[in-house]
Amino acid sequence: MILDDKLAVLKQVFETQMPFNKLLGLKVIELKDGFTKILIPFKEEFIGDFIQKRWHGGIQASIADSAGGIAALTSISSFEEKVNTIDMRIDYLHGSEPKDIYAEAEIIKDGKRIIKVDVKLYHEKTKIIALARCAFSVLRK
Amino acid sequence: MILDDKLAVLKQVFETQMPFNKLLGLKVIELKDGFTKILIPFKEEFIGDFIQKRWHGGIQASIADSAGGIAALTSISSFEEKVNTIDMRIDYLHGSEPKDIYAEAEIIKDGKRIIKVDVKLYHEKTKIIALARCAFSVLRK
Amino acid sequence: MILDDKLAVLKQVFETQMPFNKLLGLKVIELKDGFTKILIPFKEEFIGDFIQKRWHGGIQASIADSAGGIAALTSISSFEEKVNTIDMRIDYLHGSEPKDIYAEAEIIKDGKRIIKVDVKLYHEKTKIIALARCAFSVLRK
Amino acid sequence: MILDDKLAVLKQVFETQMPFNKLLGLKVIELKDGFTKILIPFKEEFIGDFIQKRWHGGIQASIADSAGGIAALTSISSFEEKVNTIDMRIDYLHGSEPKDIYAEAEIIKDGKRIIKVDVKLYHEKTKIIALARCAFSVLRK
Repeated sequence: MILDDKLAVLKQVFETQMPFNKLLGLKVIELKDGFTKILIPFKEEFIGDFIQKRWHGGIQASIADSAGGIAALTSISSFEEKVNTIDMRIDYLHGSEPKDIYAEAEIIKDGKRIIKVDVKLYHEKTKIIALARCAFSVLRK
Repeated sequence: MILDDKLAVLKQVFETQMPFNKLLGLKVIELKDGFTKILIPFKEEFIGDFIQKRWHGGIQASIADSAGGIAALTSISSFEEKVNTIDMRIDYLHGSEPKDIYAEAEIIKDGKRIIKVDVKLYHEKTKIIALARCAFSVLRK
Repeated sequence: MILDDKLAVLKQVFETQMPFNKLLGLKVIELKDGFTKILIPFKEEFIGDFIQKRWHGGIQASIADSAGGIAALTSISSFEEKVNTIDMRIDYLHGSEPKDIYAEAEIIKDGKRIIKVDVKLYHEKTKIIALARCAFSVLRK
Repeated sequence: MILDDKLAVLKQVFETQMPFNKLLGLKVIELKDGFTKILIPFKEEFIGDFIQKRWHGGIQASIADSAGGIAALTSISSFEEKVNTIDMRIDYLHGSEPKDIYAEAEIIKDGKRIIKVDVKLYHEKTKIIALARCAFSVLRK
């Protein structure tokens, strides 16, 4: 498989064929082997704390999981390979604001059977809102 | 504060005043001190894997976080107390199906400064889809 | 492989052939498919907080990892199968005392490629000191 | 409290007054506000996998917890402040060798009530063996 094709197909699948990503309004800003940067535009319905107007922690966990999964999938060398999420830990570091969230996800271990990814969520030009660490199993062909 | 009042107010806030919970369609089925059971009705837009029609792992993380937060909030004895999520781990155990998800969350540590909650996600009459463990900080009055 | 043989061999390996388990003084009290109960006798050198005489959090993490690994290994059906720890989360619930620690570990997912184990640490007749959740990869033959 | 005094006292406590650290042979190589680097010299009794001569995963978890706790304690501004471990996640990335282990721990959140620390374990000049993320509660004076 030609690498650019793989990434182009993945980007299209992530943005247009996964219903939940459409609900999030997820945009893939950057995608290369082992790394992705995505954007989730702020929407009122993503608010959890309606007094302080903060993003719900649950939607932050969704974004972390999504970014982690996208980065993990760049590890495949054929669309017959299967990637499943094993687990994720998310740490909430600083209160979010009613602004777009960016997430960067990077593979930190690209093994024969296990892939691990670190994710950070942030608002542009400000500090990190949350960090996540995800484990995936992969069935190589 | 009279206990039934506290729980009634919390239930109403969770279901009607948190925008993200409305997006989820979250219903509080049971709420008592230290425990909650919630229901998230299946919707097409919650799908991640559109071939196998599975719920997106991210939405499962959202549900776990929501259920954990609701159980944690039953620990407060005044609405001036403040509860913040510190971190969460979610373990994906079995593939989900295009059916409603139930989540039960139970406080396993109710400390002066830290609350911990265990959550399980499942379809009715079938095995567990995911387990989560959450840590919260609480500022008691 | 006859089951009783497998468990007898595992018990002997855990107790006598793993140098770190000897340092811990680890005793396997119960071992069956999917479950183990172990005992770590209290020793002065396991203390972290020398004022309150509490077990070091690090040694508790060691015990959790050991118990989790033993339970996971009961899942193999041949000694050619390979089990590796992927990750572990440990939650410290209540202060420990200068007394023996028991750990019970139970498989909560016994998959083709992934095993998950829940562990609890406690002093006899008292509340839980710590909980852990571990993920393992397994290469089946 | 004068900063250098605080760090000097902490270093001495970690190395000479915590029994478990003596068992580990823990040496504090670097200690400054928000960061520590420690060394655990290899010993035969730290081996888990006696065929491949790898450090036991449990001792790695001990080291991660120890390094994390030392970094967290640099955050205190008085010895009356109390720091407790809430939880830790450890990810095993690459097989260890029968050589000394270094651990670097860095505070990633230094809050009023919560401290978070990232830890990495490695052999000199080689890749990372394990990563950990720890949460602590702190009672400020």
